[in-house]
Amino acid sequence: MSRPRLILNAFTMNVVSHVYHGLWRHPENTQLHLNDLETWIELARIAEEGKFDALFFADVVGIDPAYNGSWDTYIREGLQIPCNDPAALCAALISVTENLGLTFTSSILSEHPFSFARKVSTMDQLSKGRIGWNIVTSVSHNAAQNYGLDEIVAHDRRYEWAEEYMDVVYKLWEGSWDEGAVLADREAGVYADKDKIHRIYHQGESYRVMGPHLVAPSRQRTPVLYQAGASGRGREFAAKHAEGTFVVFPSIDGARRGIAEQRAIAVRNGRRADDLKFIQGMSFVIGSTEEEAQRKAAEIDEWVSYEGLAAHISRDMGIDLAQFDPEMPIEQTDVVGVQGFARVFEDANPGKKARVADVAGALSYNLRMVGTPESIADRLEQWQDAGVDGLNIIAQHLPGSYRDFVEHVIPVLQERGLAQREYAPGTLRERLFPGSGGRLAERHPAAQYRGAFQAEDVLSASGTGAAWR
Amino acid sequence: MSRPRLILNAFTMNVVSHVYHGLWRHPENTQLHLNDLETWIELARIAEEGKFDALFFADVVGIDPAYNGSWDTYIREGLQIPCNDPAALCAALISVTENLGLTFTSSILSEHPFSFARKVSTMDQLSKGRIGWNIVTSVSHNAAQNYGLDEIVAHDRRYEWAEEYMDVVYKLWEGSWDEGAVLADREAGVYADKDKIHRIYHQGESYRVMGPHLVAPSRQRTPVLYQAGASGRGREFAAKHAEGTFVVFPSIDGARRGIAEQRAIAVRNGRRADDLKFIQGMSFVIGSTEEEAQRKAAEIDEWVSYEGLAAHISRDMGIDLAQFDPEMPIEQTDVVGVQGFARVFEDANPGKKARVADVAGALSYNLRMVGTPESIADRLEQWQDAGVDGLNIIAQHLPGSYRDFVEHVIPVLQERGLAQREYAPGTLRERLFPGSGGRLAERHPAAQYRGAFQAEDVLSASGTGAAWR
Repeated sequence: MSRPRLILNAFTMNVVSHVYHGLWRHPENTQLHLNDLETWIELARIAEEGKFDALFFADVVGIDPAYNGSWDTYIREGLQIPCNDPAALCAALISVTENLGLTFTSSILSEHPFSFARKVSTMDQLSKGRIGWNIVTSVSHNAAQNYGLDEIVAHDRRYEWAEEYMDVVYKLWEGSWDEGAVLADREAGVYADKDKIHRIYHQGESYRVMGPHLVAPSRQRTPVLYQAGASGRGREFAAKHAEGTFVVFPSIDGARRGIAEQRAIAVRNGRRADDLKFIQGMSFVIGSTEEEAQRKAAEIDEWVSYEGLAAHISRDMGIDLAQFDPEMPIEQTDVVGVQGFARVFEDANPGKKARVADVAGALSYNLRMVGTPESIADRLEQWQDAGVDGLNIIAQHLPGSYRDFVEHVIPVLQERGLAQREYAPGTLRERLFPGSGGRLAERHPAAQYRGAFQAEDVLSASGTGAAWR
Repeated sequence: MSRPRLILNAFTMNVVSHVYHGLWRHPENTQLHLNDLETWIELARIAEEGKFDALFFADVVGIDPAYNGSWDTYIREGLQIPCNDPAALCAALISVTENLGLTFTSSILSEHPFSFARKVSTMDQLSKGRIGWNIVTSVSHNAAQNYGLDEIVAHDRRYEWAEEYMDVVYKLWEGSWDEGAVLADREAGVYADKDKIHRIYHQGESYRVMGPHLVAPSRQRTPVLYQAGASGRGREFAAKHAEGTFVVFPSIDGARRGIAEQRAIAVRNGRRADDLKFIQGMSFVIGSTEEEAQRKAAEIDEWVSYEGLAAHISRDMGIDLAQFDPEMPIEQTDVVGVQGFARVFEDANPGKKARVADVAGALSYNLRMVGTPESIADRLEQWQDAGVDGLNIIAQHLPGSYRDFVEHVIPVLQERGLAQREYAPGTLRERLFPGSGGRLAERHPAAQYRGAFQAEDVLSASGTGAAWR
């Protein structure tokens, strides 16, 4: 039986402690050296050796005192603070990688769309089409406060804002320079064709951007678009714009239901069901026997910081778990939004009630597979059958978690056709969507701006300025 | 006689055509391939082989139709459009260089200071202290229009804005994290000391930024600061903030006067005269005899586009030179601001009156030395005697202009002690200011924020947000 291959990303973050908090203290974990390029070059080499599709960098642009009413835990544990700029790191990795995609998170809060579009186009040019963007709207007060606001922008307003942001960057990436605008004709002395380069004259609620875009079209034009919205509005946004969505379904059944729903929304938006890839977050502990794997998992768990896990989840849920005894059953708290994780825990541990501590560990433990390469591959086939297209693999320690996966699991996946043995030629998008030609499909909303702008208007008589129309 | 060495930068731009317009058509010029990383890696390798201090990237974030009332010439000649993001390129070059400084231009218009500070700190971390920033305020209407404005912000207001921008980034770079904030203590499980990390609570005319900075202190904290302001207000700004100023004095006498004046302003600002390095723009044509050099120069000039030179100068001066016959004497036009260049031309060409065409070529020809390595070294000694500390070397073609300089002129300069034979250890700043320890001096305005912030206030009771004070 022939299966499609899984899309495989190393899901990481330019921080000391990303998901498996406390593990930064592990003597073999290089993530403590987040400021050293060598840490990330080593990771990129392992990922490229394993024919991973991409490194996928999470990001935050601020941190709230969400645990115990303070930020002490975050700072003591290096829990996403410091948090270095992932785009700058991805740019640095372009020159030491050849095929690996470089996907980074960037918030609409943190950069003006004109500059962001320019940066991404430059990176896509330099990498020959290997850039991906995970679109976020920022969910912390501190992020908002770093950019002039009093507090986080209301959820729906954030998504309206994001819609306009997408509009601006689509106009720049897809519409400002027509196909064939660059002639690069040394003989004729003509670099570009002025009739094929356009101002965009965008005027909206949040932005006014005249253009033109400052970078000639890169191989992908628009980078590969990821979005991870889980709310109703967020899922609508992802179904409309995203090519990949990062999901953390707590169970295979949940994945099957959630993916089917989301694909239906994409189809209602005029896209095809398989225009949207579902990339499940997951971590692995691998042994040559099940017993060895369990023993390794127990060794890893000795390094885990409960307080770190609880602080992370407190921030994500906006509920301060420090107020509860870790042993308290979830049903006795007013904590909402974790029912899925609680149910999965209870299914896996018959007779036990999920406690606060189990919720704190949900992101880490419920998304972890422990076993032999073969048993892991078996379980991944079940996830694939539920509709999952790929994995965002979370490290327990860097780079050991990825090295183990590449050495032991990848060969088994390759044997089954679940992992690629070589990179296909072309851009990141062409590898995720074979046959796409590397550009967004005509049915994607960005495509409406192709050829949408007129040859440049006559400019102002002053000779030094153009006017808004 | 022992002379100080010259600071040497390759002054370039992530464009097809930077200063020597028309030369992009030269079959050996790789600048046409601006989108290929290989173009820039080759340049970086040559610069590092020649023990250059840095690559220094110019930038623009918009282009006005300043020549013939249109932007046709700019687009046809690739004249600074496309213009790719120089910071992204510098980041990509971090991993393929070891000692070379990477200095890029960034406008206060184009990026929010919180994000800019984070990006620069990340790059300074990854490069182990090799980042420089050329501060600009943007002088085109189109740049303003790409960021929501109707037209360029008035000159004095731009500098007020720049003052606030500097304030924000200084607070983040110098004040937000105290020395010793990072403990990275695996045994104790303490990554950082919460009492040594501070919010900055900046509230000003243009920005409100709460902080803390998201990146731990890099080796330089503040990158090496360049600024090239030539107006009165611009020179005040440079004298206060800059460590290097990029100058294009048309003559040695002009340099001597201008540098003495500028150093006096620095001293009035509480700095030392030699806290500010003067880096003169210059290009070179090198031959084994004077005749060969002149012949090579003539060959290069056959590729030059008069229209490109005139369009460049028109944009810089805000006067459309297309309205004048190139043969018209300057004194018959209303063109101002080029008297220095006109006088230098007339001194060099007794009996001739400077024409419009001579002004159009001023940036290219008046800043060009043609000769043997020895005669060039002799003339550079004269510039040094006038107070010039170093050179921003402008390419006629890439990378040939730099290869010629490194192969033929550098050995002669090294022989005379005018160029370094090896890189000194340390950061970019330590190499420019030996003995500085790599940080800005206490008398620099950024230093006022060291230790200026209090241990973090108790945060809001809600547990999810901090409030503005």
